[in-house]
Amino acid sequence: MTKSVVLLSGGLDSSTVLAMARSKGHDVIALTFDYGQRHARELESARKVASRLGCSDHLIIRLPIGEFLSSSLTDPNTRVPEGRTHDEMAEGVPDTYVPARNIIFLSIAASIAESMGAESVFIAANAVDYSGYPDCTPEFIESFQRMLDVGTKVGRGGHGLRIEAPIIKMSKGEIVRIASQLGVPLEETWSCYKGGEKACGRCDSCILRRQGFSEVGLKDPLEYEVIE
Amino acid sequence: MTKSVVLLSGGLDSSTVLAMARSKGHDVIALTFDYGQRHARELESARKVASRLGCSDHLIIRLPIGEFLSSSLTDPNTRVPEGRTHDEMAEGVPDTYVPARNIIFLSIAASIAESMGAESVFIAANAVDYSGYPDCTPEFIESFQRMLDVGTKVGRGGHGLRIEAPIIKMSKGEIVRIASQLGVPLEETWSCYKGGEKACGRCDSCILRRQGFSEVGLKDPLEYEVIE
Repeated sequence: MTKSVVLLSGGLDSSTVLAMARSKGHDVIALTFDYGQRHARELESARKVASRLGCSDHLIIRLPIGEFLSSSLTDPNTRVPEGRTHDEMAEGVPDTYVPARNIIFLSIAASIAESMGAESVFIAANAVDYSGYPDCTPEFIESFQRMLDVGTKVGRGGHGLRIEAPIIKMSKGEIVRIASQLGVPLEETWSCYKGGEKACGRCDSCILRRQGFSEVGLKDPLEYEVIE
Repeated sequence: MTKSVVLLSGGLDSSTVLAMARSKGHDVIALTFDYGQRHARELESARKVASRLGCSDHLIIRLPIGEFLSSSLTDPNTRVPEGRTHDEMAEGVPDTYVPARNIIFLSIAASIAESMGAESVFIAANAVDYSGYPDCTPEFIESFQRMLDVGTKVGRGGHGLRIEAPIIKMSKGEIVRIASQLGVPLEETWSCYKGGEKACGRCDSCILRRQGFSEVGLKDPLEYEVIE
């Protein structure tokens, strides 16, 4: 059985990627980081999703780096943007960008995968909805793969460690459809950038998620504060 | 003034690299990881070296990943190799290899550098003495640089973030000579893979260090358990 490490935030995208790896029959070790993100509620979602989708292990690693990083996602003194249109989101690099976040996550995932003899690392990078994140592009994934091929023992040994980014070119609607088909427990996933009781419905992540459900005519089981 | 992040373990090599960055007039943020290494005594050395060499800041980040990794450097149930010759060390990938360690360290350093507006990250990778580490080669550093150029905001913005590995092709003797010239507090540096009261004198790291001092005819101020 192929063993894989899947980066799992607890959001819609990474939960869907986890379900995709499981549907291919992979033995999955889910890996979640607690890095001081505002939406720590994600962690609880990640626990539930990992359990519901039958992971063989779920590692939650605390990375105490939030205080050093410049991002509205980790800094309580900045404001998470709200109520933007899709075009506004696509302008430049978003201020929810956490410098080198996916680079750090993939590095630790690769280290654990190499240690545990896993053959691949799955990441829910997506270049469609939020085109401004430099660490979510196909070009980035390819260059990370090349770096891993020369910089690790498994990479140099030739059998390698594959970085898989299966939803990188999908729209949110396509992701919602696959999630629904593969039995992702959508009511347990958490996408909102804020950590409230209900999802805010106004941050970029909520807006994209709701558009996704609406695109494919499915009902989002999450409750939102703002219903427009 | 150029601002740089310098990866500092507290050993001879990284202390020398830190002194090189300071000698070029860089404003240095030293960055040390506590990742469950056996030789936690390094951390105390790192503190003293950072202070003596005039860093503007010294961040020590706890990375609780040691328990997941396969390496004799973090696993108390395996034995650190001892008493080997230089040729024996050069055979294959050493079992003190920590999977993707430098990839993780460089990733977090890059994230902090980008957040703090630093222009470069210094790493004491060395491909000469210990040729088996895949994440210590010039080829690895180059591929990491390319990955950073496409995967970060500063990289894509064009002004970039440089990875500097100034001792990558130096022998241990050359490193000792430079350390001595630049006033590295050699008595505070710690190279031994074990965490004893005195350096063991028998692990690969002790052997290489002692050879380096001997090559250039300098006296190592450290005390060793075994004097041969």
